[in-house]
Amino acid sequence: MNDPLRKIKPAVRAISAYTLPPYRANIKINQNENPFDVPEPIKEEVARRLQSRPWSRYSAFVPASLLERLASFAGWKPEGTLAGNGSNELIQAVLTVTVAEKTRVVIPQPTFTLYRQIVTVLGGEAVSIPLTSDFQFDVPALLSASRTADVVVICSPNNPTGCRIDDEDICRIATEFDGILVLDEAYHEFSGHSVVRLLDKLPNLVVLRTFSKAMAMAGLRIGYMLSSPEITREVHKATLPYNLNFYSAAAAETACEMFELLRPGIELIIQERERLIRLLASIKGLEVFPSSANFILIRSSLEASVLFEELHKQDILVRDVSRYPMLSRCVRVSVGSPEENDRLADALSRLLSDRL
Amino acid sequence: MNDPLRKIKPAVRAISAYTLPPYRANIKINQNENPFDVPEPIKEEVARRLQSRPWSRYSAFVPASLLERLASFAGWKPEGTLAGNGSNELIQAVLTVTVAEKTRVVIPQPTFTLYRQIVTVLGGEAVSIPLTSDFQFDVPALLSASRTADVVVICSPNNPTGCRIDDEDICRIATEFDGILVLDEAYHEFSGHSVVRLLDKLPNLVVLRTFSKAMAMAGLRIGYMLSSPEITREVHKATLPYNLNFYSAAAAETACEMFELLRPGIELIIQERERLIRLLASIKGLEVFPSSANFILIRSSLEASVLFEELHKQDILVRDVSRYPMLSRCVRVSVGSPEENDRLADALSRLLSDRL
Repeated sequence: MNDPLRKIKPAVRAISAYTLPPYRANIKINQNENPFDVPEPIKEEVARRLQSRPWSRYSAFVPASLLERLASFAGWKPEGTLAGNGSNELIQAVLTVTVAEKTRVVIPQPTFTLYRQIVTVLGGEAVSIPLTSDFQFDVPALLSASRTADVVVICSPNNPTGCRIDDEDICRIATEFDGILVLDEAYHEFSGHSVVRLLDKLPNLVVLRTFSKAMAMAGLRIGYMLSSPEITREVHKATLPYNLNFYSAAAAETACEMFELLRPGIELIIQERERLIRLLASIKGLEVFPSSANFILIRSSLEASVLFEELHKQDILVRDVSRYPMLSRCVRVSVGSPEENDRLADALSRLLSDRL
Repeated sequence: MNDPLRKIKPAVRAISAYTLPPYRANIKINQNENPFDVPEPIKEEVARRLQSRPWSRYSAFVPASLLERLASFAGWKPEGTLAGNGSNELIQAVLTVTVAEKTRVVIPQPTFTLYRQIVTVLGGEAVSIPLTSDFQFDVPALLSASRTADVVVICSPNNPTGCRIDDEDICRIATEFDGILVLDEAYHEFSGHSVVRLLDKLPNLVVLRTFSKAMAMAGLRIGYMLSSPEITREVHKATLPYNLNFYSAAAAETACEMFELLRPGIELIIQERERLIRLLASIKGLEVFPSSANFILIRSSLEASVLFEELHKQDILVRDVSRYPMLSRCVRVSVGSPEENDRLADALSRLLSDRL
């Protein structure tokens, strides 16, 4: 018997796993979580609905009531809606049904790293299109690269830069190329904008959404996909049977029904983002980029690893994104509660003035 | 713009989705669920542990305490243990890192249909090895086919036939071939046997387990994989970040710790299986196959679809497996509670005597 690792695909062996070092802090603004937990009435309603639900039984094969609820919440058709174990599962499923050896997938850079990792595991070719120097989508370059591509994946608002792509540009890319356009809307609630209205006229558009950010349910792993019923049917083949546990499914349904309770938190995060941008922009030695999401990209005069460690000493955990393309000396901070944002601004202010 | 479905891989378009028609009945013995729900003290302990757990926060990137708990429960190393959203996710992950175009995957037939579907979606070649005519694993044929294969997937006890493969045969296959042997132990608790003890000497063995059957948590989607730390590290790259929600993770940990409360239910299912086999074997027109799992394969003198419908009229839902290779006129029944088993035997007895 030879080394069994020889049977692992070379593309898989070559990559390092997506990972996150296990730092801890009281002010945890490294994962774009919602600083406000799910309101108690929603939690109580979920508990009430599940009171007599046996754990030993599978959910329905097609979670019809959840799909209807998600569809009406998003303003789309149930037969074009798919639920997943986080939007991660749906990213993986879309790519699994489209990416074979040598399939070209256009991905702006820097962006969420999982797209590239999955394309690589599947043996496809990830074609990177850098953002412009002021961290906006380079639409002419995307248009040109998409002409020879099979799939384009755009995260808008983009993680970790916060930039957005316009509907017009989405339409141009979708209509001028001959492939599938995946638009990851994980942060759309913080931009007040969605492309769902374009689904009707763009049969090659796939929209991904998550409950992990604005919906305050990162711990429950719920995502959904909106697309044509035809594409949905094919992507469904690559999701796993019974991918959503009953607890998360009930939480998602209830959150859609009781969304008005979540809205004030989202509005406060948007307000706080603008306030935090102003606070941070007034700090010497800090460059702050505009954001349509619940996080802010900042570049400092210090090395990102130093900034990270110094903030960590003050019980603040941020994301060092300096190893992403173009992002040297950058960190990403999530918008926290008002108190957390004040603490962050204070800490950065002291830290950078000490170093001047 | 052309039809976007042209961008879906032909292998995907060609398959039909794994599906299950939405029948309902009070006696639900079609999915090999545990007829006894999780005992209340376990549910209460899970609720207690999660009382102050915010929903808005991601779980730890590596669920260290869960992996340690699963490993010690199974008698293996934490660094060779991986948790998944049901064992389905781990089946998919193992195959994703090993199967490229033309990869040969040996799969006994009939068996759980998901293996073949995933191999096909990934562009690999599923090589079917029929069971013997008395529904046992054809070990010489498996040995011979594995010589030119990269991966072998064996479900033992096998779904839907209930047969088991011996440790000796596992060892022969694993040592005589030059690939990865995946052993799905979804039903191992009902056989009183596990191959975990072989992991130390078989570096190419991958064991899959689930909480959906004996552990009575089908609704919560928890599976785990046991293998060498090296293989585990590679398979981990194809699982999704944060694949397990906090609720299911806490349920799994608690169930391991409080397993003694689940054991009596499992023992009763094993007793009931033997009793049900005797009851069914005494019914004229019914052929009953031995089983090491929590289900029984039966062949009747009636068409399976007729048997299915007639039982459904009596509020009993079984699985028609007659479209599986070799299984014409067969249905699979899960072992239910003593009352459910009596009702099934009565119904079958009346049904078949009516038709004689």
